[in-house]
Amino acid sequence: MAVRVDLNVSLDGFATTTDQTAENPFGEDWSRLVAAYTATRTFRSRVLGDDSGAGTTGLDDRYAQEYFENIGAEIMGAGMFGLHQHPDDAEWRGWWGDEPPFEVPVFVLTHSPRDSIEFANGTVFHFLSATPEEVLQQALAAAGEADVRIGGGVETVRQFLHAGLVDRLHLAVNPLVIGSGERIWDDLRGVEKDYGFRAEVAESGVTHVTFRRD
Amino acid sequence: MAVRVDLNVSLDGFATTTDQTAENPFGEDWSRLVAAYTATRTFRSRVLGDDSGAGTTGLDDRYAQEYFENIGAEIMGAGMFGLHQHPDDAEWRGWWGDEPPFEVPVFVLTHSPRDSIEFANGTVFHFLSATPEEVLQQALAAAGEADVRIGGGVETVRQFLHAGLVDRLHLAVNPLVIGSGERIWDDLRGVEKDYGFRAEVAESGVTHVTFRRD
Repeated sequence: MAVRVDLNVSLDGFATTTDQTAENPFGEDWSRLVAAYTATRTFRSRVLGDDSGAGTTGLDDRYAQEYFENIGAEIMGAGMFGLHQHPDDAEWRGWWGDEPPFEVPVFVLTHSPRDSIEFANGTVFHFLSATPEEVLQQALAAAGEADVRIGGGVETVRQFLHAGLVDRLHLAVNPLVIGSGERIWDDLRGVEKDYGFRAEVAESGVTHVTFRRD
Repeated sequence: MAVRVDLNVSLDGFATTTDQTAENPFGEDWSRLVAAYTATRTFRSRVLGDDSGAGTTGLDDRYAQEYFENIGAEIMGAGMFGLHQHPDDAEWRGWWGDEPPFEVPVFVLTHSPRDSIEFANGTVFHFLSATPEEVLQQALAAAGEADVRIGGGVETVRQFLHAGLVDRLHLAVNPLVIGSGERIWDDLRGVEKDYGFRAEVAESGVTHVTFRRD
């Protein structure tokens, strides 16, 4: 079992975008940042339910397949679940509708825990006020032999990297310069010293960068 | 003829380092940042004068060869020539001793021009107080059919990129997270829109990223 991170980042290291407007609530940068990933056959099938076989099948798709393989539990920050935008809404069940694309226990770090939320597809959100080490212990127990993903956001990922808790960091570096947002690299000077390194370039121009010690 | 930039940068985009100390005036980060480049056979031969054939011969070396090919003139900032460290030293002739590794006219941007300095190996430093467009016009004229390199530092490179004057930006992205220094990407949001893109991974783990429009 390994503790894994997968993120799409820009060449300048941003994993979030800031060009959202009232007219364009997602902004344009986000779709550019995830374009190669969302173009894969695996994304189209696993996330969009499109089983026509459409989508790219090269290196980006191989990484997309690995992304979905062998995950037994996920950890995310309160912001990724939406608690910062919905602090007082006891009925808030996340952004993902009735079928959150996790299908495993998800541990949400928050200073204001609430009751667990269970979905029919196997996704169960648990809310914990805990240190990274503590929540990881619970997630590993829930995952059994499978891996645990630190899903996001960027600050949560950096917190786990900083604590030395991540075994495999995979970044899909997209050929864009975004200029603002949350940068994966801040405060991670020297992180490479604890890991083996590999980089591969996909047909899309995305460089898949992996630090791993497992 | 093309206007070219070649830089070694870290994964987090830094092309300069900040760990210099009195005991270790170059710091350790710099040698790590340029390790793959200085390991090439081309660097050893062209810069160190080592013609024994030692050095790497893979993709890093191919880029090192291209680095030295077809340059007819160079442009650099005052800091790269050393004018910031030696502002009042009229005898200062740069960091490079009697054989500066340029062998072409070099145009140094400075608010305090001084007389040109000529070396026996063909290197001539000219000092200009001028806009990027103006100095480029002179460098292109001096280069004839050959290319012009914007040598550095980072701020000078960004200035030329910002002005849309660079035809080919080659970054050797080294698998290090340095955490501080001068970042190539700052203020360059959207720069990719004007260029074709290519990335290739060398045996060393360095990703050679190239934006080009020529």
